[in-house]
Amino acid sequence: MASVIPKTEEEDTEIAEKCKTFMSPPCTDVKVLQQRKGEMCTRMEMLIMETQAEFCRALEEVDGGKFKVDRWERKEGGGGISCVLQDGKVFEKAGVNVSVVFGNLTEEAAKQMRSRGKVLKGKDGKLPFCAMGVSSVIHPTNPHIPTVHFNYRYFEIEEGDGTKQWWFGGGTDLTPTYVNKEDGAHFHNSLKEACDKHHPQYYPDFKKWCDRYFYIPHRGETRGIGGIFFDDLDSPSQEEAFSFVKSCAHTVVPCYVPIVQKHLNEPFSPEEKDWQQVRRGRYVEFNLVYDRGVKFGLATPGSRIESILMSLPLTAKWEYMHEPPKGTLEADMLEVLRNPKEWV
Amino acid sequence: MASVIPKTEEEDTEIAEKCKTFMSPPCTDVKVLQQRKGEMCTRMEMLIMETQAEFCRALEEVDGGKFKVDRWERKEGGGGISCVLQDGKVFEKAGVNVSVVFGNLTEEAAKQMRSRGKVLKGKDGKLPFCAMGVSSVIHPTNPHIPTVHFNYRYFEIEEGDGTKQWWFGGGTDLTPTYVNKEDGAHFHNSLKEACDKHHPQYYPDFKKWCDRYFYIPHRGETRGIGGIFFDDLDSPSQEEAFSFVKSCAHTVVPCYVPIVQKHLNEPFSPEEKDWQQVRRGRYVEFNLVYDRGVKFGLATPGSRIESILMSLPLTAKWEYMHEPPKGTLEADMLEVLRNPKEWV
Repeated sequence: MASVIPKTEEEDTEIAEKCKTFMSPPCTDVKVLQQRKGEMCTRMEMLIMETQAEFCRALEEVDGGKFKVDRWERKEGGGGISCVLQDGKVFEKAGVNVSVVFGNLTEEAAKQMRSRGKVLKGKDGKLPFCAMGVSSVIHPTNPHIPTVHFNYRYFEIEEGDGTKQWWFGGGTDLTPTYVNKEDGAHFHNSLKEACDKHHPQYYPDFKKWCDRYFYIPHRGETRGIGGIFFDDLDSPSQEEAFSFVKSCAHTVVPCYVPIVQKHLNEPFSPEEKDWQQVRRGRYVEFNLVYDRGVKFGLATPGSRIESILMSLPLTAKWEYMHEPPKGTLEADMLEVLRNPKEWV
Repeated sequence: MASVIPKTEEEDTEIAEKCKTFMSPPCTDVKVLQQRKGEMCTRMEMLIMETQAEFCRALEEVDGGKFKVDRWERKEGGGGISCVLQDGKVFEKAGVNVSVVFGNLTEEAAKQMRSRGKVLKGKDGKLPFCAMGVSSVIHPTNPHIPTVHFNYRYFEIEEGDGTKQWWFGGGTDLTPTYVNKEDGAHFHNSLKEACDKHHPQYYPDFKKWCDRYFYIPHRGETRGIGGIFFDDLDSPSQEEAFSFVKSCAHTVVPCYVPIVQKHLNEPFSPEEKDWQQVRRGRYVEFNLVYDRGVKFGLATPGSRIESILMSLPLTAKWEYMHEPPKGTLEADMLEVLRNPKEWV
């Protein structure tokens, strides 16, 4: 595949037309995007904007409500677009966030950004970087509809000698309140299908990575039933890595929305709602104590707290010594969280 | 004051009699306590057990409900007693926990235990230690009754050359949902009175320390209206430091319970309850992201998670972009949390 696409007037129109379908104009000025349209930064920004729009529209259609769209700027460079639907008919709290930030990193910070901790050399200790991504957490009201989370991101950093380092990261994972084998199989199969198009090891490797990442050590439980998770992806080529991320991003709607529709009108009891609230408490524990993105965000001056903590549920509960009795559906869920299983 | 009290049969009976008034027998065997009754470990264990019992009884009287008492053991040495009253008439979740743990620390862990990070030398890198404390968080149902937290602890560690290092730490602080100047003054005055008996600088210094400690940087807010907080207290003498901690512990009931009684029957609106839930969300953020005790507990193998996370409210809420309109009582509260004030 060609990594530089020749500029034609037609393609300029294409970018401008596409932008009209987004929740808000892209973070970067449309003219700038047109000027550097062959570059990965532009192609990724278009992908994350498109993913945000596709997902928000799909959820709006299911819910009947509308996302509130906030644009925000980062003093140090860049900004983002946060879309939130709160107190909807189907979704208690749904957030889909895009951010495109740039600036200079210290060598130490650059090292921390990369999970493998590769040493990067800057010019006078400074490394110009650009980071962008789309991330989302959807907390439905009905305990029979699972919570979903996804995040796809791209990182570019320039070393002192002009070398550009880049990598992709991301994943999609499901957090149900009750075990539903069909849902689990549909979700994981959709992800596997997207992965298999690119590499036969992607799904098994990234499934394991996901179970390992979304783990709450102090509870001895995973946050949910997993999905895929990867970071530092810089092979086999930029083009192919991007193509894989694109497949994953396009799988978000088909892997989740059918599950929502299936359980939309299922009745639920106060006890089921209560168990959902307890599980949401664990979600909060994971996100505030362990999630790398949240920790990094909270510790970074100038980051937009409301967009970072958008992932927290509308409500959560902590009951002392909550332990569902054996043989209940709640205990079945715990069993799966304590011993991650294969879904495909 | 004498630091070694002569053993008499009468005093043995005294310890045994006192133990009968506790929520549960002390963590350490009564006979062992009698044998080493002059030692600080024993005297502190008696104080924390007594504080737990006094506070629990006072709350039971107000609420009408009963605390559930759990004894637990720590495989690595020691154990604790957790008292929890959940879904009471007055208290949504009230937890009062005592723990007495001992074992060996690595030099690195020993350093982290002390906020000033003093270097301690062990024997073959190991340092025998004993840590004990009482800690409590009370979350009432009525948003006009504030949440209270207190913790008093004692730490003893033996260096390789036989030197014993010891220090006390602790504090009591209030987290109201709405500003109430009278309550704030009563609470802080009670603490100031306890402090002033021991040193004129204690209250002003420990008040500031409290505001600094219970601060949520990513929100630019303190958790509540403070109180006192101190750590590493090892002067002017062990006897006097203990005497100060005793005064603080005895102030817990009189500084809080009158405030509970005052607001007990005040009606509240769903909007006021909602604001309380948002504030509880911030409480969770502080406890999971910043609190040293929680972080240490979650990272320590063998610690009892349910006792550590007992401090979390029964329920909490995260609304996207919640900002109370100017001129409201909710905005007044935020103003105080953003600019800590003097209450006495």
